[in-house]
Amino acid sequence: MVVAVDAMGGDNAPVVEVAGAVEAARRWDIPVILVGNSERVSAELSRHQVEGLDISIRHASEVVGMHDSPSDVVRKKKDSSVRVAFDLVKNGDAHAVVSAGNSGATMAAAMFVLKRIKGIDRPAIATVMPNLLDQTLVLDAGGNVDCRPQHLAQFALMGAVYSRHILGKRQPRVGLLSNGEEESKGTDLTRGAHNLLQKAGFNYVGYVEGRDIYNGSVDVVVCDGFVGNVVLKASEGLADAIGTMLKQELKSSLRAKIGYLLARPAFRRLRKKIDYAEYGGAPLLGIAGTGMICHGGSNTKAVMNGIRLARESVVRRVNENMVAALQGPSRG
Amino acid sequence: MVVAVDAMGGDNAPVVEVAGAVEAARRWDIPVILVGNSERVSAELSRHQVEGLDISIRHASEVVGMHDSPSDVVRKKKDSSVRVAFDLVKNGDAHAVVSAGNSGATMAAAMFVLKRIKGIDRPAIATVMPNLLDQTLVLDAGGNVDCRPQHLAQFALMGAVYSRHILGKRQPRVGLLSNGEEESKGTDLTRGAHNLLQKAGFNYVGYVEGRDIYNGSVDVVVCDGFVGNVVLKASEGLADAIGTMLKQELKSSLRAKIGYLLARPAFRRLRKKIDYAEYGGAPLLGIAGTGMICHGGSNTKAVMNGIRLARESVVRRVNENMVAALQGPSRG
Repeated sequence: MVVAVDAMGGDNAPVVEVAGAVEAARRWDIPVILVGNSERVSAELSRHQVEGLDISIRHASEVVGMHDSPSDVVRKKKDSSVRVAFDLVKNGDAHAVVSAGNSGATMAAAMFVLKRIKGIDRPAIATVMPNLLDQTLVLDAGGNVDCRPQHLAQFALMGAVYSRHILGKRQPRVGLLSNGEEESKGTDLTRGAHNLLQKAGFNYVGYVEGRDIYNGSVDVVVCDGFVGNVVLKASEGLADAIGTMLKQELKSSLRAKIGYLLARPAFRRLRKKIDYAEYGGAPLLGIAGTGMICHGGSNTKAVMNGIRLARESVVRRVNENMVAALQGPSRG
Repeated sequence: MVVAVDAMGGDNAPVVEVAGAVEAARRWDIPVILVGNSERVSAELSRHQVEGLDISIRHASEVVGMHDSPSDVVRKKKDSSVRVAFDLVKNGDAHAVVSAGNSGATMAAAMFVLKRIKGIDRPAIATVMPNLLDQTLVLDAGGNVDCRPQHLAQFALMGAVYSRHILGKRQPRVGLLSNGEEESKGTDLTRGAHNLLQKAGFNYVGYVEGRDIYNGSVDVVVCDGFVGNVVLKASEGLADAIGTMLKQELKSSLRAKIGYLLARPAFRRLRKKIDYAEYGGAPLLGIAGTGMICHGGSNTKAVMNGIRLARESVVRRVNENMVAALQGPSRG
């Protein structure tokens, strides 16, 4: 079980990728191949204690930037780090890819090199969000902006399998995101998907609303990639804004400052709960292989947890379970 | 300048409607007509000191519930409190309506009784959200789930006028909500609207992302009503969840409890900043009249502020300015 890490992808590449790989190899004995400019990666790696760790470097001469289009990675940058990482999986040298790079390009490389799971028309990016009780999986958070009902139904099935096998929900409750729970609400897309999902073999609970992402009433929330992107970025922005406003208020008087200092462990625990670095990455679901996309601004912990999750996805046979679920009848 | 208040609309009707009307009349000398079951409303009103206040009651025998469809208020419940409130405006007995009831039904009543502003195909519900600096206006937050590009362009114009005349932005920056700022992102709808908006006379700043709602980089955010509803409900849910989690953490040790007590004024100021009750309601934009929708769970303060905003919309001639902007060329 080897994880190929795109060492050149994130905003802080290759620093956090190398450090995250070293941590994952040390903590959990995961063999890692760092893919990228070998000179830069080995220079970074030399700053760490790596004796006894199974970490190697695979050179790739190109880098996909945040402004490259998804098609560039397929047509032009054939020796880019993310593309080479997926080639390693295709050739059997690795079993999963972790990248903090351009998510559209990572998805394109994954689809081009590894292809889709049969029965899945559109792979999706699933994001784990904190809720009052544990976590909600939201998908698609990726680039599927124009979806048809069967695409959303496929997202639902993939999300149910991931939630069950990785997030530990035995009978994940799957909801369809809409602007109200009444049958009269929604769009042609959501109504069409609702009709398909009512016949699905997994635990479909019907329409859910935006607030349900955070209140723990549902385990998997399905939407198109436009809505998913907007909701997730709005949530990040709101959480940041609340944090900033709270900090301003807590600095505004000596009394508040002292209160803050006393309560700081509580704030730290809250931050840990809502910190994406704890969740380690968003799985690419529906490709015939395993890929994990980390946030562009990932730190070492996020990359480390992404590598852990990539291994778990392989070990717990997420894709094989998805194929079985697609063949029904006892899905999920 | 008289405001008709739907006294039977909200979850806490008529208690908060009556109290909010009394407060608004007392603080700002606003004449109010309370519309609803006269027995219940007068019983509630008798609990307040109303000497010298210009508050009257107009009986309406029916109530629109949260599960009535928008068409019910038009076809069936002709003597419902919200419908009668708009009739008062039509007949010149009042100048604006405030309701904390079913927003779809309120919109339907407004459109049926007062009609649309010429040049506006689809009225919208605009919501004021707190951001790091002041407020962002998001529209449509209502029922326009299937929009065409010209609808979004009209929302943008209406939002710009409201932001300028009520929220005090001299040159409101108007952004179109998308899943990325690049031209390649978005849907057919957003790209079509983008093309129209680039020719608009107001300050159109292009595509914005979910996080921009909260970071103060834009004054007006335009989207269809499906996306708007999902984003706003997700934001409410996230803010509630963060508040709940923070409370749990702050109660978890004596030290944290003491810290919380010291910092409590800071928490109160933050809550005030993000409390919808301070903003007092979401304007119905595009109807030939003034309507303000308050949150179903509104408290007295929210109703009071809704009444204040309704008066300001009339006094500052929001609709007349919208008509002028629609006629261009010096729009907004």
